[in-house]
Amino acid sequence: MRFSVPPTLPLPALQARIDGKTKPPGSLGQLERLALQIGQVQQSLTPALDRPYVLVFAGDHGAARAGVSAYPQDVTWQMVENFLAGGAAINVFARQNGLQLQIIDAGVAHDFGPRDGLVDAKIGFGTHNYLEQAAMSADDCAAALARGAVIARQLADQGCRVIGFGEMGIGNTAAAALLTHQFTGTPLADCVGRGTGLDDAGLARKQALLAQAARRAALAPDAPAAKVLAEFGGFEMAMITGAMLAAAERGILLLIDGFIVTSALLVAVRIAPAVREYCVFCHRSAEPGHQAQLNALQAEPLLDLGLRLGEGTGAALAWPLVRAAAAFLNEMASFESAGVSKQA
Amino acid sequence: MRFSVPPTLPLPALQARIDGKTKPPGSLGQLERLALQIGQVQQSLTPALDRPYVLVFAGDHGAARAGVSAYPQDVTWQMVENFLAGGAAINVFARQNGLQLQIIDAGVAHDFGPRDGLVDAKIGFGTHNYLEQAAMSADDCAAALARGAVIARQLADQGCRVIGFGEMGIGNTAAAALLTHQFTGTPLADCVGRGTGLDDAGLARKQALLAQAARRAALAPDAPAAKVLAEFGGFEMAMITGAMLAAAERGILLLIDGFIVTSALLVAVRIAPAVREYCVFCHRSAEPGHQAQLNALQAEPLLDLGLRLGEGTGAALAWPLVRAAAAFLNEMASFESAGVSKQA
Repeated sequence: MRFSVPPTLPLPALQARIDGKTKPPGSLGQLERLALQIGQVQQSLTPALDRPYVLVFAGDHGAARAGVSAYPQDVTWQMVENFLAGGAAINVFARQNGLQLQIIDAGVAHDFGPRDGLVDAKIGFGTHNYLEQAAMSADDCAAALARGAVIARQLADQGCRVIGFGEMGIGNTAAAALLTHQFTGTPLADCVGRGTGLDDAGLARKQALLAQAARRAALAPDAPAAKVLAEFGGFEMAMITGAMLAAAERGILLLIDGFIVTSALLVAVRIAPAVREYCVFCHRSAEPGHQAQLNALQAEPLLDLGLRLGEGTGAALAWPLVRAAAAFLNEMASFESAGVSKQA
Repeated sequence: MRFSVPPTLPLPALQARIDGKTKPPGSLGQLERLALQIGQVQQSLTPALDRPYVLVFAGDHGAARAGVSAYPQDVTWQMVENFLAGGAAINVFARQNGLQLQIIDAGVAHDFGPRDGLVDAKIGFGTHNYLEQAAMSADDCAAALARGAVIARQLADQGCRVIGFGEMGIGNTAAAALLTHQFTGTPLADCVGRGTGLDDAGLARKQALLAQAARRAALAPDAPAAKVLAEFGGFEMAMITGAMLAAAERGILLLIDGFIVTSALLVAVRIAPAVREYCVFCHRSAEPGHQAQLNALQAEPLLDLGLRLGEGTGAALAWPLVRAAAAFLNEMASFESAGVSKQA
């Protein structure tokens, strides 16, 4: 599968338009840089953030049964049911902030049957246990990437200009730690955190198990991105990677959530580096490996609230700031139009 | 004028309610502490943030003509006109985030005449120049405090449960620097910043002028709060202080913006320390003195976006996060209600 993500182009009139608004130059800080990025992505002085979505991809991880999480694997499907019933944090935040929510079964180890509101994109009933073998076959990994791409293209066809990414999958901070170690060169121990809430003993066990998985796989530092993804990743992560790449191809703005979603982005930027330019980094996760990811991507997130919930909650919470950046560009008066004196 | 702000009370069932939501305990970070605070302020497990307002108080400063700002004093009234026309940043953000906006002429050096949408609370046509004399008389200062209290009480009577504070006043970062120095003991030089955008020479001039003002006033470290406010403050700042105190008396949640609004809060906490418990600190301003204020108040703001615009823009931008904190408390399912397994 090939993706062709074009670099965004400068739009010189955009900075002048930002500076002409009735405010001291630069006084909206990070929102001004964000407005510039949004305008560049859309190649427009009046960008429109139509039909914003948050997509929550769910999948299970074979390694979860080995004890890398504080919660049992069943919580993945139970939380999918909670999403469908509207009771999870992402439901609340998406509803409140005007984001359409789509829940995707990328590979949960549970048979949901046909269900209203659930996109059936199941690649398998969870991945293999990467302590013993690669988490997915190359074919399954490619299928997950392709399925993600299809989902993003369908939204693009419907006029969607913004996609926030979220996930659910017991054990997926462990997989994200392995990807982060591999793609950023950060020592594995610095990529491993408590996830949903391991205690000290649980954290030590997670550390040891992941070191064992890394030794088994014995990947070269320059191993191909898809190979690394298949070795350690989850179906939900691969599907996010595919959706990101296809969305960026279509000029969609990507709202990047926390540690898991950013690990999928690390794969995507290896496949098509320009995807980075379409990304808004929504928050700094409390999961320690996220900082290594942000450093590698030279990213400065919008929020730093100590969130570590996943589901795309950071993206949903940051969305009003993204909308605000476009709104000031589109709606504020200029010094000329308002008759306000400029700096002396 | 007396204010009686009661301390908020603990509500033990609140933390249990937060922890029972379908998320790992603590995983919503700062939003969980905020939900706890909101519930305590309202003494409710299901707090309601009805009729949120942002109030923008405008006033002029006699010292502005001495050269403490990069912009001419006329910009104060010109920006008030911009607010009334709906073209300023605060208009855009309040509109987008569902906040009612009220513009108050606390003491602008301009005759607006009777105007729809402008609350005429004018104490005077700008303050005196504190390089030469106290900025306001004790009577004018008391009148501004009282007028702010009346405005807040009217909103409380109408069912308003949240007030965000904003301001407009050329030269008011200079006044805020003097108040911050006096109330926090921070060296004056560390309280003085570039405001709306002074260059190096302008900053040096501002520093020298403010040192001169501090020497002239020669206030004791324990000078009464109202005396300090009258010496250096602006009518808009005094009116904010009065509105904060009256709002907290009525159990209203206060959204604290940046450097100017926090300087008004420093006055309020000297008058009634419990007002601090009603405050949500919305953002960390790029104006350097704001950090000294936040340290003194032991406050950790929600946003850190390098904003330095004022007008209440930081409060308006943070409001969706405040609403999100109440929403997760009110709308999320519990582990029990959703049938999700708890931590192993």
